Amino acid sequence: MSGGEVRLFMPQVTIAQNILAPNETIATEIQNTLATLQIRTLNIMSSPGAGKTTLLERSIQRLRGKLNLGVIEGDIETSADAERIEATGAQTVQINTRGACHLEAHMVLDALNKLDLTRLDLMIIENIGNLVCPAAWKLGEDLRVVVMSVAEGDDKPAKYPQMFATSEVLVLNKLDLLPYVDYDLDKVKRQVLAINPHLHIFELSCRTGAGLDAWCEWLLEFARGK
Amino acid sequence: MSGGEVRLFMPQVTIAQNILAPNETIATEIQNTLATLQIRTLNIMSSPGAGKTTLLERSIQRLRGKLNLGVIEGDIETSADAERIEATGAQTVQINTRGACHLEAHMVLDALNKLDLTRLDLMIIENIGNLVCPAAWKLGEDLRVVVMSVAEGDDKPAKYPQMFATSEVLVLNKLDLLPYVDYDLDKVKRQVLAINPHLHIFELSCRTGAGLDAWCEWLLEFARGK
Repeated sequence: MSGGEVRLFMPQVTIAQNILAPNETIATEIQNTLATLQIRTLNIMSSPGAGKTTLLERSIQRLRGKLNLGVIEGDIETSADAERIEATGAQTVQINTRGACHLEAHMVLDALNKLDLTRLDLMIIENIGNLVCPAAWKLGEDLRVVVMSVAEGDDKPAKYPQMFATSEVLVLNKLDLLPYVDYDLDKVKRQVLAINPHLHIFELSCRTGAGLDAWCEWLLEFARGK
Repeated sequence: MSGGEVRLFMPQVTIAQNILAPNETIATEIQNTLATLQIRTLNIMSSPGAGKTTLLERSIQRLRGKLNLGVIEGDIETSADAERIEATGAQTVQINTRGACHLEAHMVLDALNKLDLTRLDLMIIENIGNLVCPAAWKLGEDLRVVVMSVAEGDDKPAKYPQMFATSEVLVLNKLDLLPYVDYDLDKVKRQVLAINPHLHIFELSCRTGAGLDAWCEWLLEFARGK
């Protein structure tokens, strides 16, 4: 402190154990098991309130009769999202992390034991609403989808690059709000593609339905590409 | 798995060390030091994109000449927010967490060494955009402020109760978007007050300026209440 005499101590905290290694082992086992069962799997991530659950509701409604979908709902405390998804008729399992800010592979493994996997084509894992930590934890998914609302501001890719670097698909949601927010859509697309040139981008609004057809068509192709 | 033969292993992961204890020791030292210097301190938290930085910009502009403000800007990778705050003329220090999802007290302590504390009335710490982890880490603040955008959906207090339970102030931001989103403002206020009956709530829009006067008046009173 340039004020002078005030000087506090600085601790040295070192976390030596690689806590990600056992997670990756389980994630690989999950991925192999689901591949054997010909189930394709998505890990959907976003900030709180970007619209993951609503996107799932709308998608399941549109894909009814075309796909057998299973959903693993990650949530810190409540079962509110799982109840919303269950109401669509999809097989649903709730994971409550009791305070933890991301899902881990062992939680997904536990949830898989509660689903009838013989009847599924596509498994969707809805992660905890958090743009940071979930990016570090593999869950056995084939692909990662990051959902971003245009109401979050157009600086998020630059500020949370890891999430965009490790995802294959970006869903830009709440496009109906574009006229009411300061959001440079072209800048965002340029930035995410600079971070990850292979990112597949969907632009849609769950509220109006715009863009949902293309997204659901892609989901169907993805699930059938087994 | 009710499918039958597929059964993977379940790991036992136990983190025995209480990693929060050394943090609280440093946080208490920071709080005592700042109290001695008659500097009041806020820790501002939210989801990514709720509008923390814009709220700070608008507040500093309105409080110019009335308060000497210092800002500690937490960010994972960039210095974009610190540059925005620096442009307002406030003393600003950037903390880059290099991937970490929350600020810790030792980072704040390091940042304090880069500020001229003899000239400050109010210190504002802008935490990482994350509605989960920052709630667990004390930084030496006198009060905690959680900012929530109405575009995030009205189910967030129930889903992230810890953040609302440990904050003293809630800023409901982006109220100009209310006509365009499905958001039950009364339900949110009922829910947050059920979690935390003492929560002081401000409703405002940084975009239109509505509600900013009351918030800045409160900031001024808070800073002067030393």
